[in-house]
Amino acid sequence: MWQEHYAQRTQRMTNSAVRELLKFTEQPDCISFAGGLPAPEAFPIESVAQATQKVLCDKGIAALQYGPTEGYYPLREWIASYVSESGSTITPENVLITTGSQQGLDLTGKIFLNPGDTVLVESPTYLAALQAWMAYEADFIDIPTDCDGMQTQYLSTLLEANPKFIYCQPNFQNPQGVTLSLSRREELIELSIRKSIPLVEDDPYGALRFEGEHLPRLLTLSHRAQSSYGQYAGNSISLGTFSKLLMPGFRLGWIVAPMEVINRLVQAKQSVDLHTPMLNQIVVHELVSNGILEWQIPRITQLYRERRDTMLMSLAEHFSPDIRWTEPHGGLFIWVTLPIGMDASLLLQNAVREHVAFVPGAPFHIMGGENTLRLNFSNASIPMIRDGIARLGQAISHLSQPVS
Amino acid sequence: MWQEHYAQRTQRMTNSAVRELLKFTEQPDCISFAGGLPAPEAFPIESVAQATQKVLCDKGIAALQYGPTEGYYPLREWIASYVSESGSTITPENVLITTGSQQGLDLTGKIFLNPGDTVLVESPTYLAALQAWMAYEADFIDIPTDCDGMQTQYLSTLLEANPKFIYCQPNFQNPQGVTLSLSRREELIELSIRKSIPLVEDDPYGALRFEGEHLPRLLTLSHRAQSSYGQYAGNSISLGTFSKLLMPGFRLGWIVAPMEVINRLVQAKQSVDLHTPMLNQIVVHELVSNGILEWQIPRITQLYRERRDTMLMSLAEHFSPDIRWTEPHGGLFIWVTLPIGMDASLLLQNAVREHVAFVPGAPFHIMGGENTLRLNFSNASIPMIRDGIARLGQAISHLSQPVS
Repeated sequence: MWQEHYAQRTQRMTNSAVRELLKFTEQPDCISFAGGLPAPEAFPIESVAQATQKVLCDKGIAALQYGPTEGYYPLREWIASYVSESGSTITPENVLITTGSQQGLDLTGKIFLNPGDTVLVESPTYLAALQAWMAYEADFIDIPTDCDGMQTQYLSTLLEANPKFIYCQPNFQNPQGVTLSLSRREELIELSIRKSIPLVEDDPYGALRFEGEHLPRLLTLSHRAQSSYGQYAGNSISLGTFSKLLMPGFRLGWIVAPMEVINRLVQAKQSVDLHTPMLNQIVVHELVSNGILEWQIPRITQLYRERRDTMLMSLAEHFSPDIRWTEPHGGLFIWVTLPIGMDASLLLQNAVREHVAFVPGAPFHIMGGENTLRLNFSNASIPMIRDGIARLGQAISHLSQPVS
Repeated sequence: MWQEHYAQRTQRMTNSAVRELLKFTEQPDCISFAGGLPAPEAFPIESVAQATQKVLCDKGIAALQYGPTEGYYPLREWIASYVSESGSTITPENVLITTGSQQGLDLTGKIFLNPGDTVLVESPTYLAALQAWMAYEADFIDIPTDCDGMQTQYLSTLLEANPKFIYCQPNFQNPQGVTLSLSRREELIELSIRKSIPLVEDDPYGALRFEGEHLPRLLTLSHRAQSSYGQYAGNSISLGTFSKLLMPGFRLGWIVAPMEVINRLVQAKQSVDLHTPMLNQIVVHELVSNGILEWQIPRITQLYRERRDTMLMSLAEHFSPDIRWTEPHGGLFIWVTLPIGMDASLLLQNAVREHVAFVPGAPFHIMGGENTLRLNFSNASIPMIRDGIARLGQAISHLSQPVS
């Protein structure tokens, strides 16, 4: 009886390839480069336990009662200060706490997208953003990228399609690991402001930089370009998360936006989950206001840098010279381009037989990308990375050879 | 620059009157019957603290890592067993964990509602359900109610409008506190199955019964009516929550539905928040599997029964005979009907001057209801209830008298 009742939009909802793969990779002998999981050995379990006890003892009722849709005010204050940079002062009223950064993507779609609206995205882009906005029946136009991120020289032409917004991950992009250069950030801001097109900045990994200099947020550049105002009034909506800094299991993210947009997002959030869990918000506030990130970020960064280095060395050792890959300066991912004609989905079937997994690149694309794949280096130990890349090299060579 | 970018659906999103009022009622000298807040003195803070320590010690990584969209499997098992009744065996695969029951309303809208689709609702009905589905541009038709709930004799005529689903709160309905009688439950199931119309059962309060006999869930009746199957295959989608049994601040609810519907809901949930926080799920599983509800439910029920009794006695003492109210057998709310022509919004302005608050009834209606209001009795102490109802009686008598 159900088929006839589903909404039109459900035809655009598909099972995530990533999530289906995650199930496979739960087999204990599989080395998985598939998920986007942080290293569990870096979870601050003991600190979370202590903070939780303190919060339940001091603020137990607030932690267990209903709370405001906007979020726990002291945490909004902390985030406002955390994301403020020179020339861009964010106030707590510009911050909405979300149930993970994924909710930021959903709410953005909810307030902006009519069926058939266009969103400009990087090619490739984060597949769960595509999924969130496909559920609002959006169409997508992709912007070519290279090792400096989105190729902004194509922007002014692409903006003629009159998109509802531009989606950009400026730092260590998921899936490619590339970073948008400063000059391109400035060009993106300049063009999008001139055309009055909102910019959705998604920055889950920006703090996890292994080398090179921190570049200003799009939020900051947008604010600098527009601010004769006392408070944030740019064209950027900026999504952030504690998932990669502390732990994803708390589902705690945020949106920074001009007040008028925050008001709309709050209305939308009321209707989807009333508010984000209070205990989680108050515990994370307890952790971050006591400076946990001052030791947590260097600790993760060192761990992931070593793993990236190992993966890059193993790739050079085991992959043939006609295969290319990115060299990210931070984050969680390396992006591999196989020779044209080689299909990463077929490769995955071979890889699974070698007990190693990755995510094929096609779902990160609007079209094409069959010869690409994403490797995660944050969730495997150094010996597993060495072993896994060697196995993957084997799987590729089997695929390259004609079947006897 | 923003106005022109918003989606059509944002015109249907409004600030919740309830939430705006909640802000007012934070003033310390205000006696509030406005919110739907559980009694914080019944929160099992110490048990939560102990369970959290145990979970972080024994299952710390699982509690802080990403988890499956469907939810923590042992909690799905527990819920399946909790909602199973004679003649209706629910399996864990029929259960999706949600970020509060509100998310159940949103996801139901997301998979079923095209713009302009019709939903049948009780009159009055839960206003946050209206808000969730207005965001999908649904239209509503209301079903008259009396002290036995939805008047099912009107159903067969109303079903000719071909609604996408029927929404029903069978137990101690928010806002009226009324309960759907067994014969009407059976009629509702019989008619909706015959017409192949899905039924969305929302039951946050069912376990909080002060007197009388527990009536079977719509889920159960639907299953009994259809089951020659081994697993749940009725026409009911049933929403539940731990918010009123343990604490709302954890944002933990569930949906029970046929497997095919669960699959659609999982796809929709992936795109909105990936999954519900893991720590919260594992801690609640720890609590409920150790039998916390066996003492928690009687404790809350006794507390709320006393408060309801006090409120009913105070109403009889301070309200004039031309005012009517419901006498709920459970839950959190009493519903008051003022004489026709008396406006509850005007009354609220008087009440605020007397430092007492409630929710006017109009937002719970599709149309009308200006002379109705909702009183919450779970969140105020017995002396506050006595005092607050006396003040409200004052405010009414001031409103009744011509201004001198």
